[in-house]
Amino acid sequence: MAENRAILYAFWLSSCSWRVRAALHLKGIPYEERSIDIVKTNQQQTEQFRAINPAQKVPALVIDNVTLVESMAIVQYLEDTRPEPALTPKTPVLRARMRELVEVVVSGIQPLQNNGLQSQFPTTEQYTKFTRYWTDRGLQTLEDLLQKSAGEYCVGDQITLADLCLVPQVYNAVGRHALDISKYPTVSRLYEKLLNEKVFKETHPKVIKSKM
Amino acid sequence: MAENRAILYAFWLSSCSWRVRAALHLKGIPYEERSIDIVKTNQQQTEQFRAINPAQKVPALVIDNVTLVESMAIVQYLEDTRPEPALTPKTPVLRARMRELVEVVVSGIQPLQNNGLQSQFPTTEQYTKFTRYWTDRGLQTLEDLLQKSAGEYCVGDQITLADLCLVPQVYNAVGRHALDISKYPTVSRLYEKLLNEKVFKETHPKVIKSKM
Repeated sequence: MAENRAILYAFWLSSCSWRVRAALHLKGIPYEERSIDIVKTNQQQTEQFRAINPAQKVPALVIDNVTLVESMAIVQYLEDTRPEPALTPKTPVLRARMRELVEVVVSGIQPLQNNGLQSQFPTTEQYTKFTRYWTDRGLQTLEDLLQKSAGEYCVGDQITLADLCLVPQVYNAVGRHALDISKYPTVSRLYEKLLNEKVFKETHPKVIKSKM
Repeated sequence: MAENRAILYAFWLSSCSWRVRAALHLKGIPYEERSIDIVKTNQQQTEQFRAINPAQKVPALVIDNVTLVESMAIVQYLEDTRPEPALTPKTPVLRARMRELVEVVVSGIQPLQNNGLQSQFPTTEQYTKFTRYWTDRGLQTLEDLLQKSAGEYCVGDQITLADLCLVPQVYNAVGRHALDISKYPTVSRLYEKLLNEKVFKETHPKVIKSKM
């Protein structure tokens, strides 16, 4: 009866969707992606999608006969139920360093540059100024915190949840917000390295868009 | 050499500080609270505090000879290193339900109603409209999600990280944002019950302020 493959409701342009897509890829979990257009046709606002996620946001994942929402809750469920390969360091202090970075992105940057905010601003100029300010400030915090933790990746030499958050956020910063990240050398170095990893190449928004 | 008591840098009015204060209280961890006034004197912007948290935000916790920042990273470090009493459910699905609620608050509400946003808006009226819109929308999401998880508390009959997030956020919604929460019956019921728990009585902002 049960569907074997997980179903990911996502959008190619959504940074939170990318986090989950990358986690599924790293853990080798078979899944089917269903596109919910949150930009042109506002499919997240349909009654059909509201039954999947009452918050009317992507991503949502149907897996193990449950529907999960909120990207990091989903990713951590995958980590709990499919622990290999581990995306979390082993020691409490390194785990905390990873979670600090995750929280800076998830709480300090992403919500304050979300496309969905635009309708709440009287002018596009105000929206743009706001989103660029908070993205830039968050990137500075990441740069500062990474001095304590970075190795080959955000935390030591292992890809962790922090990298799953960093890549989509910096992609938005460079692209949508046209920010210069060269003043953040550690962020820049990690971003360039991670973009060349198989997982981020194969889950890249441009690749997802080209398959639609 | 090492300081035995943890040091919490926090502010009585800060909802993120309250999350950590409540976790320390529940786990019976001895700590000293040092006030960083983020409203009147902007102590978070001093060089002295920047050395503690480069992001110039509260809370920060010095414990076990490390300095940790970002409230949920701190709380989860306490959960990793002092597992009793547990603030996380045992099964992966309930853990995911808890994390969904946490993420709605931490990513979907708190950042979009933060005091620190005010300077980015041309008028107070615009700021107020923005913060009330996102708080109200987030409360609706919490109400919807709680239908799947709530018992005596947010997730079943155990106080979890979700309750540590719910109480300070609803306190802001009712107080600072003057929102009517009666249209969210589950949120209202849990909030009233939790406010009467010893942990939230003793870590309540008004109690902390009165000790300053």
